[in-house]
Amino acid sequence: MRYEIRLAGGGGQGVILAGLILAEAGVFEKHHVVHTQNYGPEARGGTSISEVIFSDAEIDYPKTLCLDILVALGQKACDKNLPDVKPEGLVIVDSDLVKKVLWRKVVRVPISRRAQKKFNDPKVANMLALGTLVPFCPWVSARCLSKAIKMRTPAGITQLNLAAFQEGLKLARRLKKSLKFEEIEGVTEV
Amino acid sequence: MRYEIRLAGGGGQGVILAGLILAEAGVFEKHHVVHTQNYGPEARGGTSISEVIFSDAEIDYPKTLCLDILVALGQKACDKNLPDVKPEGLVIVDSDLVKKVLWRKVVRVPISRRAQKKFNDPKVANMLALGTLVPFCPWVSARCLSKAIKMRTPAGITQLNLAAFQEGLKLARRLKKSLKFEEIEGVTEV
Repeated sequence: MRYEIRLAGGGGQGVILAGLILAEAGVFEKHHVVHTQNYGPEARGGTSISEVIFSDAEIDYPKTLCLDILVALGQKACDKNLPDVKPEGLVIVDSDLVKKVLWRKVVRVPISRRAQKKFNDPKVANMLALGTLVPFCPWVSARCLSKAIKMRTPAGITQLNLAAFQEGLKLARRLKKSLKFEEIEGVTEV
Repeated sequence: MRYEIRLAGGGGQGVILAGLILAEAGVFEKHHVVHTQNYGPEARGGTSISEVIFSDAEIDYPKTLCLDILVALGQKACDKNLPDVKPEGLVIVDSDLVKKVLWRKVVRVPISRRAQKKFNDPKVANMLALGTLVPFCPWVSARCLSKAIKMRTPAGITQLNLAAFQEGLKLARRLKKSLKFEEIEGVTEV
């Protein structure tokens, strides 16, 4: 049993820290975890990716094979990484920054807008993004993610980060109730 | 051209943050970089490892093949990872925590002792360890590592971390002058 998540976004969107926190939450869940960041020229110019593999056994191959979840915080990040999602996989996108997603199972969350509106701080978008994973990823709980956030973020902004995480979680829970992927035929497009 | 560095230590020694900073310094140097953390059961119980690959071309295989440098902050971490160092590779150890190293090229630095004595804070040992890499690793400069430290550490402790980094660098530079690996025959052992 292996579960793969990739976070993709632009420089400065904090996907690398989010990946680190997700990986450490997986450790608290007692999974085997591999966390990889690949910084290529395209990462420097445009998108960053951070990927986490959870497994119930030792992980021999540390590269993702086909993603269970892709979280994309920008259009370029989405387009570039969509081919690596497995057919029944889920794509979570920032609904303002990703307008077009040719995929069946898509969850659109106003991540950056909410970070700005509610917290007046676009930098917490990565914590909101972590929150959106929880209702869809059976491998990691809100409890362990909160613990990892506390461990990895400076004391002064821990409460802000936790509040942003909870906000993302709340948004995603609400969206999950209204989603019926089974009924959607073909691809969805905005 | 590919260059591989692994940091290994016990839980709480901060090797994961150190690896992240090393990877980001490599990005500033304009290398291709892959940074991987593997959290297995042994990581939970004992040693953590964080590894960074630098390359001048795209990195296809994201796992280390044979290490150019191993930094070991504990005996168990050293014993476990030594088999992965390439024959002409270098091993940097904490001289108080790693007593026995069956290797030819070894640099012994009083990392944790200095962190405690000079900074009264064992937690900065990871920043000292980063400093010790600089004189031996041609792929990363003090300038880019300092930049990455500033970027990744909370404002309140940036100066402390930079000072610890500089201390590690100073110690390693001094040691490098006195080392003559060419003259050492066979393995070294303390």
